Amino acid sequence: MIQEKNLRRFTENIFLSLGCPKKDAKLAADVLVSADLRGVDSHGTARLIGYVRLYDHGRLNPNPNIQIIHESPSTAVIDGDRGLGLVVAPHAMKIAMKKAKKYGSGWISVQNSNHFGIAGYHSMLALKEDMIGWSMTNAAPLVVPTFSLEKMLGTNPIAIAIPAGEEPAFVADFATTAVAYGKMEILQRKGLPAPIGWVQDATGNATDDANAIKNGGGLLPLGGDREHGSHKGYGLGAIVDIFSGVLSGANFGPWVPPFATAGFHGVAAEQVGKGTGHFIGAMRIDAFRPKEDFKASMDTWIKRFRNAKHIENQPVLIPGDPERLLEKERRENGIPLNEKVIEDLKNLGERFHVKF
Amino acid sequence: MIQEKNLRRFTENIFLSLGCPKKDAKLAADVLVSADLRGVDSHGTARLIGYVRLYDHGRLNPNPNIQIIHESPSTAVIDGDRGLGLVVAPHAMKIAMKKAKKYGSGWISVQNSNHFGIAGYHSMLALKEDMIGWSMTNAAPLVVPTFSLEKMLGTNPIAIAIPAGEEPAFVADFATTAVAYGKMEILQRKGLPAPIGWVQDATGNATDDANAIKNGGGLLPLGGDREHGSHKGYGLGAIVDIFSGVLSGANFGPWVPPFATAGFHGVAAEQVGKGTGHFIGAMRIDAFRPKEDFKASMDTWIKRFRNAKHIENQPVLIPGDPERLLEKERRENGIPLNEKVIEDLKNLGERFHVKF
Repeated sequence: MIQEKNLRRFTENIFLSLGCPKKDAKLAADVLVSADLRGVDSHGTARLIGYVRLYDHGRLNPNPNIQIIHESPSTAVIDGDRGLGLVVAPHAMKIAMKKAKKYGSGWISVQNSNHFGIAGYHSMLALKEDMIGWSMTNAAPLVVPTFSLEKMLGTNPIAIAIPAGEEPAFVADFATTAVAYGKMEILQRKGLPAPIGWVQDATGNATDDANAIKNGGGLLPLGGDREHGSHKGYGLGAIVDIFSGVLSGANFGPWVPPFATAGFHGVAAEQVGKGTGHFIGAMRIDAFRPKEDFKASMDTWIKRFRNAKHIENQPVLIPGDPERLLEKERRENGIPLNEKVIEDLKNLGERFHVKF
Repeated sequence: MIQEKNLRRFTENIFLSLGCPKKDAKLAADVLVSADLRGVDSHGTARLIGYVRLYDHGRLNPNPNIQIIHESPSTAVIDGDRGLGLVVAPHAMKIAMKKAKKYGSGWISVQNSNHFGIAGYHSMLALKEDMIGWSMTNAAPLVVPTFSLEKMLGTNPIAIAIPAGEEPAFVADFATTAVAYGKMEILQRKGLPAPIGWVQDATGNATDDANAIKNGGGLLPLGGDREHGSHKGYGLGAIVDIFSGVLSGANFGPWVPPFATAGFHGVAAEQVGKGTGHFIGAMRIDAFRPKEDFKASMDTWIKRFRNAKHIENQPVLIPGDPERLLEKERRENGIPLNEKVIEDLKNLGERFHVKF
C-alpha cells in the first residue's frame, strides 16, 4: 500500500525531472494517480515508465507549445506539439468548455499528442461547470475489425461524464473492445486462459490463448463475433479513430504510433498524420434545459436504475459507481501497487534521484 | 417484389390519409422506403401499420407545430408536438445543420416525438453539406442493464454518417444491443432458437428461447454478459437514453412509451416527460480541417480498412457497405416484402381507399 499523497509527489517529481513545467508535472501526476485511485491500475503510475520511454525515444516534448490551428465558434483542432496526452487533453477540455460557455458546446479534435491516460479524467473536468464531458482517443493497433486478420484499431476508449443533482455523476469510461488490454496482460502474467470472445488467433479463429495477440492474433471488438454484434464494436472503435485521427490530422488506423510500454508492435515506417489523436467535447447543460430541471430528472434516472429488480446479491450499477467507491476506499487506505510496478518506480527514482 | 416507386406512392398516400401535409407525407414515406431499400426491413413499411395505430390511439399529431423551446448558438431543444418521428427528426437535423453552418456544430435534443424510423436516414442528411451527421433515439424498454431483471432501456440506436471523397460515405447505424429486436421477431415467427448471448430469461440466465422476452426476460446489451462487456453496451444505451430523454425533457428509461406494434409491453401509467426523445447532431467538416484534406484522409482510411488482410472469402466491410449495395440492387430489382407485411399494407389500403 502506498499513500496517494506520496505517489502523487513521486510522480510529479519524475515529470519535473523530464523537464515538464511545474503546473504540467502536477497535472500529469494527478491524471495517473486518479487512475490508480479509481482502480484503473493499468492506466495509472504503472505507465509512468512508458512515458519516460517515450521521452527517451525523443517522442515526447516535455514543454509543448499547444496551439489552436483551425477553429470555428464551437469547434477547433489543436496541435499538441508532441506533449504528454496527460496535459494536452485537459488543455483541450479547457478550450471545449470555454466554447461551450459561450456557444453551448465545444468540440476539440487533437493532433500530435501522446497517450492521454484514463479517458474518464478528462470528461469529468466538465462536471464542475455543469457540463457534459466527452473524451475519446485513438491508440496503437491491437484490435481486429470484424472479418479482419490484421490489427487495425486501438482499444479506442469513449468516456462520457454527465452531472446529476444529489446523486453522484454518471461516468461511463470504456474501451470499445470486449475487454481492456490490461486484463489480457494479467492473464498473460498468470499463465491463465482467456474467455472465448476476447481474442482471436492468427487464422481468425476464437481462442482462449491469452498470448495469441503476440502471435498474429488480435483483440476482438465489443460484441466478440459477428453473430453477437462485433461489427458494432468495430464501428464504434472506427468512429473514435476517425474523430480523433482523421478529423484532426493525426495518425489513424494501423498507423497510430505505439505507446512505449508494449514491445510487440512496432512503429509504422510510414505516417499519415501527426502523433496520436484525441477528441474532446463539452456540452453546457443549460444550453439545453434549465440545469435544475435536468439534475432532478437525472437523479430520477439514476435512482430508478439503481433500484431496478436485479439478480441475487448484485444490484444494478450506474456507470462510474465501482470507480467512485474504490476511489473513496483508496484515498483512505492507500493504493495497492503490484511488485513489478514498485520495482519500475524504484528504478525510475534511482535514475532521476527522486525518493520513492 | 414491389417497385420502390409504387411503395413510395402508396406509403405517401396513407400518410396523406392520416392528415399529414403533402411535404411531411412525402418525407415520412421516404424514410420508410429508404429502410426497405437499405435492407433494414424491420424499420421500413412493415412499420406503417404501427404509425397508423399510434394515430388511432390518439398519440400521433399528423400536422405538428414543431418548435424550438430552448436554445444556444450551437444547441437547442425542440418540441415535436407529438408528430411523426419520421418528420420531426429530419426537422431537427435541418436546425442542427443550420447551426453547424454558422457555429461549426449543431446539437438538438428532441422531446414529444414518436418512433423515427431508421437512425441512419437522419444522419445521412448531413452528408450533402459536407457535415458529419449524428442521430440517436430512445425507445420503449426491451433491454436489461447488466445484472438487471427488469427491462429498462430501448434498443437505443446510434447512427453516425461521415463523408468521404471518392469513396462512399462511412455510415454506422446500430442498436446498442447484441442484436436488433427485428432479428428476434424473425426467430419467433420461425420457431427457431436464439444464439446464447442475445437474450436472458426471467431469472436473469442466458437462454436460447427466442420468446423469453415475452415471458419476463429481456434483450441483452451489446457485449452479452459482464465478462464480455455488457456493461459497455448498457452504458452506451444509457447515454443514448439520457441525451435523447433527460436532456430534452422527454420520457426516459422504463417510462418511454411503446411504439404501437408490439403488444407485450404496456404504456407506463406514469410519465416523466413528453413522448419519445431523440438526439441529433451535425459537425461541419471544415470547422475542423479543410474539407479536401479531410476527404483525402477519409479515402485513405476506407481503402486501408477495405484492403485489410481478411478471413477466407469475407473481406473487411466499411460500415454502410452492406446497406449501400442492397439499396443499389433493390432500386433496380424491387423490394421483397414478406407476406404478413403485404397483407397489412393491403388492409391499410382498403381502410383508406388507397390502391396497393
